[in-house]
Amino acid sequence: MNMKEIAQLAGVTAATVSNAINGTGNVSEKKRKEIMEIIEKEGYSPNRFAKSLRTKESNTIGIMVEDITAFQTPRIINGINNYVEKQGYAVILNNMSLLEKTGNHYSELSSYQSAISKSIKLFNKTQIDGLVYVAMHDRDVMELIPKLSIPIVLVYCYDTSKKNYYVTYDNMDVIADVAEYLVKHGHEKIGVIKGAEDSLPSQKRLRSFITQLEKAGKELKEEYIFPGAWEFGDGVKAYERFKQLEEKPTAIFAMNDLMATGFMDAALNDGVRIPEDVSVIGFDNRQECRFTRPRLTTVDIPLEKMGEKAGQVLLDLISGKTPENRKVILPCEFLEKNSVI
Amino acid sequence: MNMKEIAQLAGVTAATVSNAINGTGNVSEKKRKEIMEIIEKEGYSPNRFAKSLRTKESNTIGIMVEDITAFQTPRIINGINNYVEKQGYAVILNNMSLLEKTGNHYSELSSYQSAISKSIKLFNKTQIDGLVYVAMHDRDVMELIPKLSIPIVLVYCYDTSKKNYYVTYDNMDVIADVAEYLVKHGHEKIGVIKGAEDSLPSQKRLRSFITQLEKAGKELKEEYIFPGAWEFGDGVKAYERFKQLEEKPTAIFAMNDLMATGFMDAALNDGVRIPEDVSVIGFDNRQECRFTRPRLTTVDIPLEKMGEKAGQVLLDLISGKTPENRKVILPCEFLEKNSVI
Repeated sequence: MNMKEIAQLAGVTAATVSNAINGTGNVSEKKRKEIMEIIEKEGYSPNRFAKSLRTKESNTIGIMVEDITAFQTPRIINGINNYVEKQGYAVILNNMSLLEKTGNHYSELSSYQSAISKSIKLFNKTQIDGLVYVAMHDRDVMELIPKLSIPIVLVYCYDTSKKNYYVTYDNMDVIADVAEYLVKHGHEKIGVIKGAEDSLPSQKRLRSFITQLEKAGKELKEEYIFPGAWEFGDGVKAYERFKQLEEKPTAIFAMNDLMATGFMDAALNDGVRIPEDVSVIGFDNRQECRFTRPRLTTVDIPLEKMGEKAGQVLLDLISGKTPENRKVILPCEFLEKNSVI
Repeated sequence: MNMKEIAQLAGVTAATVSNAINGTGNVSEKKRKEIMEIIEKEGYSPNRFAKSLRTKESNTIGIMVEDITAFQTPRIINGINNYVEKQGYAVILNNMSLLEKTGNHYSELSSYQSAISKSIKLFNKTQIDGLVYVAMHDRDVMELIPKLSIPIVLVYCYDTSKKNYYVTYDNMDVIADVAEYLVKHGHEKIGVIKGAEDSLPSQKRLRSFITQLEKAGKELKEEYIFPGAWEFGDGVKAYERFKQLEEKPTAIFAMNDLMATGFMDAALNDGVRIPEDVSVIGFDNRQECRFTRPRLTTVDIPLEKMGEKAGQVLLDLISGKTPENRKVILPCEFLEKNSVI
C-alpha cells in the first residue's frame, strides 16, 4: 500500500502520513497512532523503498533468490541482468541459501518466511525500485510474499492468490509435443516416471501426456506410471520396477533429466541398450545430463527468457504501466537428441 | 587508504579530513584542496563505505561476481553465505555478467574495468563493511581491483602485486597425486591435454605433472602433450591426434573435465574402450561431467571451502585483525571413480 492509499484510509493528506512516519511536522499523537496502525495492518513500510518511490528512482532493482545453487537460478539471473542493464538499471542480489535450510520440503513455511523477511530487511537498507523473486521449486508461493511498497515479480513459481505478477513456463503444450513425438516414432507401450506427488508441474505434465495419448487413441497403463521425486535415484528405482514387468514399455518419459539419466544409467548397467531396447526422454535440459551417452532428448525451459521477461514486467511496473496479465507463461522447447528411436 | 592515514599524509586530524570531505566545519580552501588531492591520489572514497567504517558497522558484506553462470561461482557464493551468515552478517551480491561481454579473453582489461567500476559504484550506494571478489577465470587480477576504503578479499584468482588478500586452491600437490596414481596403476606412456597457453594454472599443472613423473623415473614425451583451451572440442581434437600416434598413450590426464569428456566421447564413438584401452582423468569435478559412462576420475576444487575461507578472512579484516598471509591456498581432493584401470 502506498502513502496516498494510507492517507485516504486515515482521512489525512499524504504529507501528514509522511510527517507521522518521519516524526516531522505537527501531527497529534492520536492521529500518529492511527496512521501507524493502518501502516502496520496494511503493510506499508516506512523505509527507503518508499523514499525511492517518492523522491527519485535509484535505477537499481533487487533479486531475491531462494538458492543460488539450484540448477535454474544462474540462467534466470543472467536473463534478468541482460534485460535490465540494457535499460540502464543495475542489479543487486541476495541469496537466501534455502536448499540447505529446507531441502525439498516446500511446506516448511516458517523457514522460508524468516529468510524472506531477513532478505527484505536487507534490501530495505539500500535503495531499489523493484524486486524479482526467483524460486528454487516451481510451486505456489502465495503465502510467502509479504506486501511491499515497491513492485515485485516472481519467477519459476506462481501465486494462486493473484496478488503478484509472475513469469513461468508452459508445461502443457510441450508435453503434448513429447507424447506426440513418441507416438509418431511408433511407440505403443509408453511409461512415465512422475515428479513429486504434491508438485503441480508433475500433475500438469501427467494430465497433458495422458490427454495427448488419448487423442492418438492410446492409453497410459496404470502399471506404466512409475513414482518419482525428481532425483537420479528415482530413475534407478523406476528401472528396477520396469525390469519386473512382463510386458515392458518401449519408451519412457521421465519428468526430469535426473530421473531420465538414472533410468538410462541403470538400464545400460544391466546391458539394456538405449534407445534400441528402450527410448528415454527427459525434461529440464540440465547441465548435469549434458554428456550422457546417448545424448538425452529433453525439454529446454526458457530460463534466460523468463529472467528477461521478469525484468521487463518489473520495469513496466516501476514506470507505472500496468501489464495486461498477472502471469506470463513462456513456451518450452523440445530438444531432439539421440535417446529415442 | 583510511581516514587516519590520509590525515597523517595531510598533516591534519581525521576530523579535519572528515570536514573537508563533507563540507562541514571550518577547513581552509587550500587545506581542503590538499586533502582532496591526497584522497584522489590514494584512493580513499568519501562514500558510505567510509561512513559505515566511521560510524557503525552495517553487518553486511558485498560479493562482486564476474559471472554467475561460470561453473564455480554458485558453490563459492554458497560457501561465503554459509560462513558469514553464521557470524551474523548479511550478503548482497552483484553479478557483472562478464562471460558474455568478454568471453575467454582475459586481457580485455577495459571491459573488466568498466564493469568493476560500475559494480563498485553500486555497492557505494549501500552500506557494506567489506567485499569479496569472485573471478570466473583463475588468473592474475592485479590490474583490475582499485583501491578501496573497505577490506576486499579475492577468490578463484590471485594478485601478484601483493596488494590484496586472496583465496585460491592448490594445483601442485594434487597434480602430483594424479601423476602418482597413474604411475601406480602401471602406466608408462601417459599423455596430457593442456589448458589455455597463457593460463598459469595450466603451466603449473604441467610442471607438477612432469616433476612427479620424473621422480618415478618417467618422462613426458613431447608428442604426448596435446594442446587445449579448456573446451569439450579440445578433447575431441586431442583424440584425433592421439589416434594418429603409432605408439599411443595408455592414459590421458586432461586439465579439465570438459576436455576429458570430449576425449572420452570421441574415443567411445570410435569403439575405443574406456578405461580398458585408455584411461582418462579430468579436473574440476564439474556438474556437466557428472554422469559420463564410465564416471570420470577427477579432482574436486574446494569451492565451498574457498568461499567460507574468503568470508573468514574478510570478517577478520573488518574486525581489524591482520591475517598472517596475503594468500590462502586450499588443497584439492582427488576423486577416484571409474575411468582409470
